[in-house]
Amino acid sequence: MNMTLDWIQHPCRSIDHQAAAAAQARQDQLTKPRGSLGRLEEMAIRLAGMQGTDAPTPDPVRILQFVSDHGVATEGVSCFPREVTLQMLHNIARGGAAVSVMAEAIDAVMEIFDLGIATDPGPVAGVRSERLGAGTGNIAREPAMTDDQLARALDIGRTAVERAVDEGARLLICGEMGIGNTTPATALACALLDLEPSILTGPGTGLDSQGVSRKAQVIAAALELHARSEHGPLELLRRLGGFDIAASTGAFIRAAQLGLPILVDGFIISSAALVATRINPGVRDWMLFSHGSAEPGHRHMMEALDADPYLHLRLRLGEATGGAALVPLLRMACVVHRKMATFDEAGVSEA
Amino acid sequence: MNMTLDWIQHPCRSIDHQAAAAAQARQDQLTKPRGSLGRLEEMAIRLAGMQGTDAPTPDPVRILQFVSDHGVATEGVSCFPREVTLQMLHNIARGGAAVSVMAEAIDAVMEIFDLGIATDPGPVAGVRSERLGAGTGNIAREPAMTDDQLARALDIGRTAVERAVDEGARLLICGEMGIGNTTPATALACALLDLEPSILTGPGTGLDSQGVSRKAQVIAAALELHARSEHGPLELLRRLGGFDIAASTGAFIRAAQLGLPILVDGFIISSAALVATRINPGVRDWMLFSHGSAEPGHRHMMEALDADPYLHLRLRLGEATGGAALVPLLRMACVVHRKMATFDEAGVSEA
Repeated sequence: MNMTLDWIQHPCRSIDHQAAAAAQARQDQLTKPRGSLGRLEEMAIRLAGMQGTDAPTPDPVRILQFVSDHGVATEGVSCFPREVTLQMLHNIARGGAAVSVMAEAIDAVMEIFDLGIATDPGPVAGVRSERLGAGTGNIAREPAMTDDQLARALDIGRTAVERAVDEGARLLICGEMGIGNTTPATALACALLDLEPSILTGPGTGLDSQGVSRKAQVIAAALELHARSEHGPLELLRRLGGFDIAASTGAFIRAAQLGLPILVDGFIISSAALVATRINPGVRDWMLFSHGSAEPGHRHMMEALDADPYLHLRLRLGEATGGAALVPLLRMACVVHRKMATFDEAGVSEA
Repeated sequence: MNMTLDWIQHPCRSIDHQAAAAAQARQDQLTKPRGSLGRLEEMAIRLAGMQGTDAPTPDPVRILQFVSDHGVATEGVSCFPREVTLQMLHNIARGGAAVSVMAEAIDAVMEIFDLGIATDPGPVAGVRSERLGAGTGNIAREPAMTDDQLARALDIGRTAVERAVDEGARLLICGEMGIGNTTPATALACALLDLEPSILTGPGTGLDSQGVSRKAQVIAAALELHARSEHGPLELLRRLGGFDIAASTGAFIRAAQLGLPILVDGFIISSAALVATRINPGVRDWMLFSHGSAEPGHRHMMEALDADPYLHLRLRLGEATGGAALVPLLRMACVVHRKMATFDEAGVSEA
């Protein structure tokens, strides 16, 4: 591998367990039965431990939106034609996509990347062109990326996180858009979890059962070609992943190294979360999991990550929309943590 | 019963199925795989049907906070002393309680009611004194309310909703605070669902297993005394309920009659939702269910109401906090519904 990849093994920052314990102690003194705000308490305590503060906050929120094409789309693994990736890039940038509306609603700064759409759109307002090619290779026949493309994709994630941290971001959400990308995400998860495609493969944007079967066959072919026991997670990412998944992997590793809390989105981004933690296990401590996706394989990824996602709203869109949906609840958890009165302050008797 | 209760049987407004169908059709034209925003789509469609509009919104949100004491608290069914009800009234009014912080965070107007705390606090800034007594009767030994108290409690809910509608409210959340009130809520649910106290009784604010057993015995005694097959839901509410539960019941019935969407909070308020739908089944159409409570009996109430709550965050606080937690997601669902581009508008190819 490229020498410039040394950074992905560098240690992650440590969680501030003292700050987390102090946040827990404060929660136990707030005027409510102990533990009665359930996972809202957990959100504030987790963020307090990551941010090393008694006033945790998800703000400012940074969304990195990675748009790219996937060679395997030519195998007919999606209900949408491939040109939709390019069309959606424009739609996201112009404010018409779900994530555009949600990012504005939650006041998040979103950086949109063209990491390699099949057709180069040229300059697009609001989009960073960091093209690594005209889509990845078709994983059913060849590796998704070259060593150089992989290293550059990871690096795009790394530098985007460094920029976000420089600009004051306190929470990272990675999103993706790319026709066909549940296929590499599923293939990568199969390889990392040693599970059959029949277990993990789902309908993605809406395949019928015949389509799901066909997709599982394509994934099986990709695994046959690439999933060797001698390959570590990085090589599996190169062979089976995508530019979006690799950039998110790099972003997650760097966020954990710099101490930026990560809010994991849906199915595709969870495959990046999985590979990031396999490359550098310390990344796990910096992850919050936004939602359980309706894509059936997602449950297996969450189990492997020992994750218990907060929302279960049958979302299956990606684009960071699941992450964005949790942000208002993180905010509420933090404001409750900061502003509620303690038993002492309010003169309320304890149990 | 008092003649003035005729109103609770008046018909509820009809849902605008045409508006709901139009909202569904719009969702299917937005630039995302069909159905991929899952229950966020459902939220917008349900509200569109209730509000008869293509631009549904939960705003302005009105919270009715019903604070009162429960005679059965003297049976030792809570870990908190009874004076906490009064102390929490002050805390809620001064902004220190969970719901105070959350109501401010979501920009909701909250009306706080003293419906009958054991000790009359006198005038309290920000609190409506509508006292029906110094707490209810101890349901283990006597009915909770007289006919007159029941009629007045229902009427307080009715007039509060009429006021909210007059002032433009588009979403109703009822909350409650009152030491011991999971006991009447559980007793009422047992009677309405014909389930044993051992199945529905839970720890409330945090009883240990011995405390839960004792509480179940108290509930069994109340059921032995009051739960006769000849009693309808209204009489069961009078005998087993509380001022808070009765006021919420009246509020829900009136909201459904006036076409104001109802967001049901947690365990205690769900018992009011249950009795409201038993009194007037049309109320059910106007209900959204915010969350599944950590109080174990809540699941049975949700099943009886054919409800699938949106959030599962192990909340067990009441005070309308579960309802408040869902409001940002309702808002997000509505803004996505209004603002996302359609396939046509965005020039995106369909599946």
